[in-house]
Amino acid sequence: MSLDGTYDDGNIFAKILRGEAPAARVFEDDHVLAFMDVFPQSRGHTLVIPKHSVARNLLDEDPGVLANVILGVQRVTRAVRAALNPDGIVVTQFNGAPAGQTVYHLHFHIIPRWEGVALGRHGAGGMADPGELKVLAAEIAAKIS
Amino acid sequence: MSLDGTYDDGNIFAKILRGEAPAARVFEDDHVLAFMDVFPQSRGHTLVIPKHSVARNLLDEDPGVLANVILGVQRVTRAVRAALNPDGIVVTQFNGAPAGQTVYHLHFHIIPRWEGVALGRHGAGGMADPGELKVLAAEIAAKIS
Repeated sequence: MSLDGTYDDGNIFAKILRGEAPAARVFEDDHVLAFMDVFPQSRGHTLVIPKHSVARNLLDEDPGVLANVILGVQRVTRAVRAALNPDGIVVTQFNGAPAGQTVYHLHFHIIPRWEGVALGRHGAGGMADPGELKVLAAEIAAKIS
Repeated sequence: MSLDGTYDDGNIFAKILRGEAPAARVFEDDHVLAFMDVFPQSRGHTLVIPKHSVARNLLDEDPGVLANVILGVQRVTRAVRAALNPDGIVVTQFNGAPAGQTVYHLHFHIIPRWEGVALGRHGAGGMADPGELKVLAAEIAAKIS
C-alpha cells in the first residue's frame, strides 16, 4: 500500500473502535484508545490510535487530532514505564508498507526495550496469548495518571 | 544512559540550537528546529527537535511543548515526502540507550524508505557528506508548506 489512498473503515483498528473486534484495552479518553499489540515485538508492546479519525497515517491526520494523539502516547508511554520498568522505550509510527505499516489507521507503537534483549520481528513470534495481553493491559492501565 | 537523569546542555543538539555546532538546517519555527541527521539511516533522514526544552526524552517533555513538536514533525514529514517521493516514511523516537537513543535532547527521526532498499544502521555508513546534506536540506526546505 502506498502513502496515498483513501481510508477503509474495514481495517482492524476501526473494527476495534466499533467494538466489532476484541482488544486488550489499556486506556481510553475522548481522543485516543490504547490497547496491546497482538503481534508484540517485546513484552508490553502497546498501540495508541485516534478514536475519531479517518487518517491512514501521519501525513493525512488533522493537526488538532494529532496533537491530542501524541499527548495520549506520552501518557501511555509513562504508564508502560511505570508498570514494566523497561531500560528504554521506542515510540514509532509507520507510514506506508515499505515503512512497516500493516494497518491503515494512524497508530503509534510503544515498544519497551530491555538491555540485552533483541527486538522481535512484528508477527514473527506469532499472535500473543490473549490472557497474557489482558494481564499486561491491566498492569499498564493501573499506572495511567 | 537510563531513562532517568538530568538534562545536560552540553549535548550536540543543544550546541546546534545555540549555533555552536553546524547542522544542515531544514526548517525552524517558534517551537522546533529540523535538520539532517549526520549519520543517516536512509537518504533524507531528518531530525526534529524542540527549541525551548530541557527534556531528555518523550517521558520528560512538557505536554504543551510536545504537541507543538509533533506538529513540526508532521510538517517536515510532509515536506520530506514532497521533496524525495519515498515509498514510505518511518517516524520514530528513542527513549534511553537500550532503545537506540544517543543524544539526550528529545528528538524525532523522520526516515524515508524505498521499496527494496534496506535501512542502514545508525552510524554504520559513517558521517554523511556535509555538502550532500545541505542539498537535501534545501530540497526539503523548498517543500515546507
